[in-house]
Amino acid sequence: MFSQNDFVHMERALALAWRGLYTTDPNPRVGCVLVKHGEVIGEGYTQPAGHDHAEIQALKDARSRGNDTRGATAYVTLEPCSHFGRTPPCANALIEAKVARVVAAMEDPNPRVSGRGLTMLRDAGIEVRCGLLETEARELNIGFVSRMMRGRPWVRMKVAASLDGRTGLPSGESQWITGEAARNDGHAWRARASAILTGIGTVKEDNPRMTVRAVDTPRQPHRVLIDSQLEVPPEAQILAGAPTLIFCSTLTPLLEERAAVLHDRGAEIVPLANENGKVDLPRMLEELAKREVNELHVEAGYKLNGSLLREGCVDELLVYLAPSLLGNDSMSMFNLAAPGSLDARTQLEFHAVDRIGSDVRILARLLPNPPAH
Amino acid sequence: MFSQNDFVHMERALALAWRGLYTTDPNPRVGCVLVKHGEVIGEGYTQPAGHDHAEIQALKDARSRGNDTRGATAYVTLEPCSHFGRTPPCANALIEAKVARVVAAMEDPNPRVSGRGLTMLRDAGIEVRCGLLETEARELNIGFVSRMMRGRPWVRMKVAASLDGRTGLPSGESQWITGEAARNDGHAWRARASAILTGIGTVKEDNPRMTVRAVDTPRQPHRVLIDSQLEVPPEAQILAGAPTLIFCSTLTPLLEERAAVLHDRGAEIVPLANENGKVDLPRMLEELAKREVNELHVEAGYKLNGSLLREGCVDELLVYLAPSLLGNDSMSMFNLAAPGSLDARTQLEFHAVDRIGSDVRILARLLPNPPAH
Repeated sequence: MFSQNDFVHMERALALAWRGLYTTDPNPRVGCVLVKHGEVIGEGYTQPAGHDHAEIQALKDARSRGNDTRGATAYVTLEPCSHFGRTPPCANALIEAKVARVVAAMEDPNPRVSGRGLTMLRDAGIEVRCGLLETEARELNIGFVSRMMRGRPWVRMKVAASLDGRTGLPSGESQWITGEAARNDGHAWRARASAILTGIGTVKEDNPRMTVRAVDTPRQPHRVLIDSQLEVPPEAQILAGAPTLIFCSTLTPLLEERAAVLHDRGAEIVPLANENGKVDLPRMLEELAKREVNELHVEAGYKLNGSLLREGCVDELLVYLAPSLLGNDSMSMFNLAAPGSLDARTQLEFHAVDRIGSDVRILARLLPNPPAH
Repeated sequence: MFSQNDFVHMERALALAWRGLYTTDPNPRVGCVLVKHGEVIGEGYTQPAGHDHAEIQALKDARSRGNDTRGATAYVTLEPCSHFGRTPPCANALIEAKVARVVAAMEDPNPRVSGRGLTMLRDAGIEVRCGLLETEARELNIGFVSRMMRGRPWVRMKVAASLDGRTGLPSGESQWITGEAARNDGHAWRARASAILTGIGTVKEDNPRMTVRAVDTPRQPHRVLIDSQLEVPPEAQILAGAPTLIFCSTLTPLLEERAAVLHDRGAEIVPLANENGKVDLPRMLEELAKREVNELHVEAGYKLNGSLLREGCVDELLVYLAPSLLGNDSMSMFNLAAPGSLDARTQLEFHAVDRIGSDVRILARLLPNPPAH
């Protein structure tokens, strides 16, 4: 169904799509390659939101190079859109450009529009094929797919620990367990996220900025803070710069007062309590999806990490293991109790294992919990 | 100094040496390639102790193929021996075979004989070069080198844990945290060791055999048990088969009685107490080196693991990390206290990181402790 050339061109389209890793948010990262008589006549990838999608870029590129797009094949890493969003539909543009064939890596993950773009193209007499390098295309937009299909972001939790699984000394000292290469790599993962989440415990201990600094990016992720009692000091670094979103418990008169101060500091306050008076984490994820958060990058402490895991709010662990031992009275990764039996343990799948400087990086995905006995 | 061809032939000699991984003990694993006019005319590697060394095998191989060894180059992964041990010296055999050139990967690590074999060859008019692929050659015989240079074995401690660094549930349940591939791989590491060490805690809990079963080997490592009060039940599986060496505390009348029973079961009892009445671990390593233990493979529990680490008796950690989380009240890898500051933490170097089935294997070497502040 797909030729060797189809693979080559779709690989190229994926490579182009990756160029938008830090910038397309909240749109998906998409790449497009136009090929005619075996030659690439135009290339493009998604520009920052409100600007051109990949297909439009590729068509413009072809024209600017004096190429005629009629009869060409368009390779796109995602089904061309069929609706007017911030920009006109790409399916229309491809039809107007009179391409003869469209090869898509995957359908639009939004169940409400999935397949419509391809149908528009087929109705216009264009030959359409879908599913080439679909796994790779899904991986690249894992957060967008998650938001569209599950109504929640893809949640990636970063942890830096020693080989024996400890994140800091009993004194709290934890800077730095991992090396500079791993810390810089961590910023690259921040940069691709729509938002970075932390908790009030981390703010009190480390007063982090939670911005991307170690890699170049024109876009800073949004910052989200879980702070049920609005204890964050108005001068905390996490409030500096762009508005920070703070989830808290139900507003009491005291919290109203604190909220007013934080509001003046530019923060947005969202009360969202569960029955225990804590922030309702699953509902928070829904709320973040409504705000178009695709990938949520978590850098929090022992307690919030544990709560997120226990409430099923983590999709992936990004673990940096350092070549050291911190001993068994040092801090653990998660406030997580042992299961009653090994059968009931939290199961993961190692998605990728790499050496980063002198450390090891393990990307591990949460598997569905086994049925309780 | 070394030609491309020299590298090729020494690589081959190393590959041959690896064939003796499970069998040469307590001798080093050595390979030898004889080359004449650019052609390999004979190959050999160390046979089980008491039988031919690599050089003799290669000379015999050349002769059996009707090849004349005069004027050949001999590539050997270790300096040819110069003394009568269980077999006559290999340096003599090379001289008698009238080889023209000898290329060795490394000198003999035994400081008392180091260089003597090469000198014998030079004195006989043979051109001698040393140091080609020395790092690789040292790695292959890391235990033999350790015993010769430090008077103690190379100690490799195996640990199987979840990604959060836990080796078992609070209930003690730990079978199985890692997968079958990792468990089989663990047996391959047992098979290359001279001896396997465990503690009485592990014997009481798991009653292990501590033999190699998952890989084919003609040789079972010796078994060593640390059991200060000689509590091991006479029917314990670790006593079955070949004699097990048991280190205990100073013999009291009660221990004398127990020792007699264990002696009847074939065990050898060595009292070796430190001032606390525990087994003196550093002196135990010296004792094992005297008994020609090159690589010591440790599979023990939390307590003994911690003691070995604290007393500087570990060279390398062989850690299998499973894709699961066991929670922070589960068992830790080592009974090891947190350091006072991060500067004083136990430092490692990740020597190798590999995926074994669904698990990750990390080979981490202990670095010298930083000076105390």
